[in-house]
Amino acid sequence: MSVSPLRGIFAPVLTAFQPDLELDIKSTIAHYQRLLQNGCDGLAVFGTTSEANSCSIAERSYLLEQLLSAGIDPKKLIVGTGCCSFKDTAELTLQATKAGCAGVLMLPPFYYKSVSNEGLFQYFSKVIETVNDNRLRVYIYHIPPYSMIPIPLDVVAKLLERFPQIVAGVKDSSGDWKSIQQFLQLTEKGFQVFTGSETYLLSTLQEGGAGTISAAANVIAGTLQALYQQWNKPGAEQKQAAINQIHKALRTKPLIPSLKSIVAKTTQRTEWKQCRPPFLALNPEEENQLFANLEYAGFSWP
Amino acid sequence: MSVSPLRGIFAPVLTAFQPDLELDIKSTIAHYQRLLQNGCDGLAVFGTTSEANSCSIAERSYLLEQLLSAGIDPKKLIVGTGCCSFKDTAELTLQATKAGCAGVLMLPPFYYKSVSNEGLFQYFSKVIETVNDNRLRVYIYHIPPYSMIPIPLDVVAKLLERFPQIVAGVKDSSGDWKSIQQFLQLTEKGFQVFTGSETYLLSTLQEGGAGTISAAANVIAGTLQALYQQWNKPGAEQKQAAINQIHKALRTKPLIPSLKSIVAKTTQRTEWKQCRPPFLALNPEEENQLFANLEYAGFSWP
Repeated sequence: MSVSPLRGIFAPVLTAFQPDLELDIKSTIAHYQRLLQNGCDGLAVFGTTSEANSCSIAERSYLLEQLLSAGIDPKKLIVGTGCCSFKDTAELTLQATKAGCAGVLMLPPFYYKSVSNEGLFQYFSKVIETVNDNRLRVYIYHIPPYSMIPIPLDVVAKLLERFPQIVAGVKDSSGDWKSIQQFLQLTEKGFQVFTGSETYLLSTLQEGGAGTISAAANVIAGTLQALYQQWNKPGAEQKQAAINQIHKALRTKPLIPSLKSIVAKTTQRTEWKQCRPPFLALNPEEENQLFANLEYAGFSWP
Repeated sequence: MSVSPLRGIFAPVLTAFQPDLELDIKSTIAHYQRLLQNGCDGLAVFGTTSEANSCSIAERSYLLEQLLSAGIDPKKLIVGTGCCSFKDTAELTLQATKAGCAGVLMLPPFYYKSVSNEGLFQYFSKVIETVNDNRLRVYIYHIPPYSMIPIPLDVVAKLLERFPQIVAGVKDSSGDWKSIQQFLQLTEKGFQVFTGSETYLLSTLQEGGAGTISAAANVIAGTLQALYQQWNKPGAEQKQAAINQIHKALRTKPLIPSLKSIVAKTTQRTEWKQCRPPFLALNPEEENQLFANLEYAGFSWP
């Protein structure tokens, strides 16, 4: 079976909650659809920005069913499935694979710290062997600032050697260009490298990477798509520089609540501001400052 | 309803796995029973040492059912229920509370980092309000080396003020005596402080604490119980010093695999060595070194 590799602009999509903190499925799926129509090549559902780790295993499974029933194309989905236990991870991964999703984005087991390379290799291997489905495509999720478990190049290379059809790529959210560069060494084997930070989108594409899975794609997917389309044309560096300004403005307040405030304003639905604890919605003062910082950075409201 | 506070020596009990990494319920429960007959006042099931975070939510729920069916007294159990999502945490907590368990040991949500005090307070509050059962007793699990989310005294004090009947104590696994001391300030309100490290058992008892929930209790429960019984008698300091030697020897190899190797030897069941990835069983050389270090430190095989 031949699988076309994923490329382009992917949003790790926000999740909407009701005032009582239950999932707001309808608003969440409407957001997915807007993004697919406005610049996203695909969606990374249940990522860090999705507050996926603040959702139960059962909720994640249910939301995947619901979004597929709503007609979202599974071939455009990379599904975040990485939990601390290989059992939960394998269960969510199996569901996504059976449903025909393009791939899964898999965190390392992130509770126990200072684990060995061999232990990490065995963890990912155990998940892949448990799922035991040739349609599976795994994108390794390297995000040390949250997981606190870096995934060394050696571990990824060993997994790629052991499971060449299955291990499809990496999302690097280290925030470190040198880290992304080391994974780009693997691209000649068909390995797809996504930068987690849109600030490295141009550099990643210039060096053979696949694109970005970036939180900012929730609010500037069109801007990112314009760079993706024209990365090797004149003006690409200016486009990247403009994106970097927005990136910086988005970090002046907590990122996930900030993105939710922006979506609340653009959809005129204040419910979108609701986060699950430990995150808190921005207060009006923080929101005003954020919006001012964004506008100063060149952000234009849709 | 009056509840007698928990005190004494608690083991965060090891979990046995089969060669295919599935739960070995029978061996696990046999270990629980041995500990309750040989020095443990109670058990902290599904703690860090239990590899609970390497078990699925469904497995944790099933194992609790099974151990209660096997006749383990729920009044001797503190059940680890802390997940990243308030939904999973509340579900496991509700099950334990309905089953009459003495309390639950609750991690902070440990995926997202750099969270605010108010966000942490809201997280624990949301779990308690979701469970909504006056029988609930929450022991806050302060373990920054694994969770990477310290729980400040202010947050614990605010929770104690908001839920005075429910918030029952803390397990402090920071490894820092100053941290334990700050929580000991709350004991006059009936708050129970357990040290996660047995090296602070004597000091904790001397300053009004409740005892220890210590990984070492899996293999030296009787030794710890002897100190607990005689902490204010002559010889207590020598007992603590002897415990400290064992503590040190246990840290010469990875702790959880080391404890499993010891249980494998004492039960003559090599299957006990099996860990779930990312942990790996000790190899024979590591095991020999561990056992030599333990014997040099005064450990005597049962």
